[in-house]
Amino acid sequence: MRLVTAVEHDGVRDEVAVEEPLEIRVDGEPLAVTMRTPGHDEELALGFLHGEGLIGPGPREAGPTADLAANVVDVAGPLTRVVAARRFYTSSSCGVCGRGALEEVAVHAPPATPGPLIDRELLAGLPERLAQPGFERSGGLHATGLFDPRGNPLLVREDVGRHNAMDKVIGRALLDGDLPLHGHILCVSGRLSFELVQKAAVAGAPILVGVGAPTSLAVELAADRGLTLAGFAREGRVNVYCGDERVAGTRLGAR
Amino acid sequence: MRLVTAVEHDGVRDEVAVEEPLEIRVDGEPLAVTMRTPGHDEELALGFLHGEGLIGPGPREAGPTADLAANVVDVAGPLTRVVAARRFYTSSSCGVCGRGALEEVAVHAPPATPGPLIDRELLAGLPERLAQPGFERSGGLHATGLFDPRGNPLLVREDVGRHNAMDKVIGRALLDGDLPLHGHILCVSGRLSFELVQKAAVAGAPILVGVGAPTSLAVELAADRGLTLAGFAREGRVNVYCGDERVAGTRLGAR
Repeated sequence: MRLVTAVEHDGVRDEVAVEEPLEIRVDGEPLAVTMRTPGHDEELALGFLHGEGLIGPGPREAGPTADLAANVVDVAGPLTRVVAARRFYTSSSCGVCGRGALEEVAVHAPPATPGPLIDRELLAGLPERLAQPGFERSGGLHATGLFDPRGNPLLVREDVGRHNAMDKVIGRALLDGDLPLHGHILCVSGRLSFELVQKAAVAGAPILVGVGAPTSLAVELAADRGLTLAGFAREGRVNVYCGDERVAGTRLGAR
Repeated sequence: MRLVTAVEHDGVRDEVAVEEPLEIRVDGEPLAVTMRTPGHDEELALGFLHGEGLIGPGPREAGPTADLAANVVDVAGPLTRVVAARRFYTSSSCGVCGRGALEEVAVHAPPATPGPLIDRELLAGLPERLAQPGFERSGGLHATGLFDPRGNPLLVREDVGRHNAMDKVIGRALLDGDLPLHGHILCVSGRLSFELVQKAAVAGAPILVGVGAPTSLAVELAADRGLTLAGFAREGRVNVYCGDERVAGTRLGAR
């Protein structure tokens, strides 16, 4: 597991984020290929399958195949539902895989549970508490962190794909028996897409905050599921797009 | 076609990037679903299929289905090869779709042609010449631009997905009969992944430059195909990771 690797450019040594393909199998059968930063592959596979509604919240076996160099991770089945196309494909930001029609884009996620209450200033400052050693060395990694309502970081993962980083955090929680993430906050280093809201909602996290902008569909899904969605969290300010009953303190909307 | 839409947060009106799913069909048969910003859907579909090696460089018919509200685009076949799983799935950053094994990740792209020669300072400044009206309003869109070697912008597209933005540019060029993009430069507003290099290589563009960091696999693929790959193009400086024979002027590597 290495987040970055050395390159030479313009006569100087530098570092870039590692990107390699990973094939996700279930009971030995190929299901998806994703471009990701190696490391925590079991977490990635489990988090991905959970976000797609293909496995429940309980821990299950996952690991590399006998050929450790093969960039393959195998997850023990069964899946909670049959995937129409048994082989589907994903990438570092893919999240609508495995569903055959537009109306199936949103996988089932229960409405968010009430609480917690978080201070607005604390929420705005969460991205600064995201430890990102790989990003600092390469400038090329995204991060997702899991926080408690007092702003304590519980878990952080970095990856070239922002969806992968969240999959890894949720997969870790799954392995630890910590799903659903009621009462917790997910924080991402980038923008807020529909698919990130979907993953957070399926994992039961009531609050999702990011450094970047949300999309229209991200706001719609968060509002529909009762999540708190906050964006542009930087320099002490934050925009709360929905679910502001979980945010205490003066409104200082900004961008 | 609208890039942004109004939202209200914290008691103020604001704008966010529009994100909606699009189903891509070939001869009426569903092939992929992607999350994208509506508009230029034919370009997106054609550029995507071209980057995957599924259609050649010649223009072909593509358009909405009879139900214009359905977020579906239909492309006239045939494909240049059979896709193993006829229904595969993608997202706003998906690019390894439709290939069943890791060794098939790199679709066929011919080695880059020689030239052009571009001034280093001009290369570093290309991102500033990317017109991004949607980003300025929402902070939530990526852009790809096509430039000539003198730095003139020929075509710019914005999308919530950075891969979509490039697909739209390449799809437009395909519709105009302008592929391959020999002698031209592709410029992206974000990071440089393997998949973006793949799309540029398949389209025949010899130079790819971005505001952000490249990944390890992006550098490897660009070097292998003979492309010039440049990153961190900002504040008058740029890193050239490979293909520096196309870059004239003093080396001022930076990050």
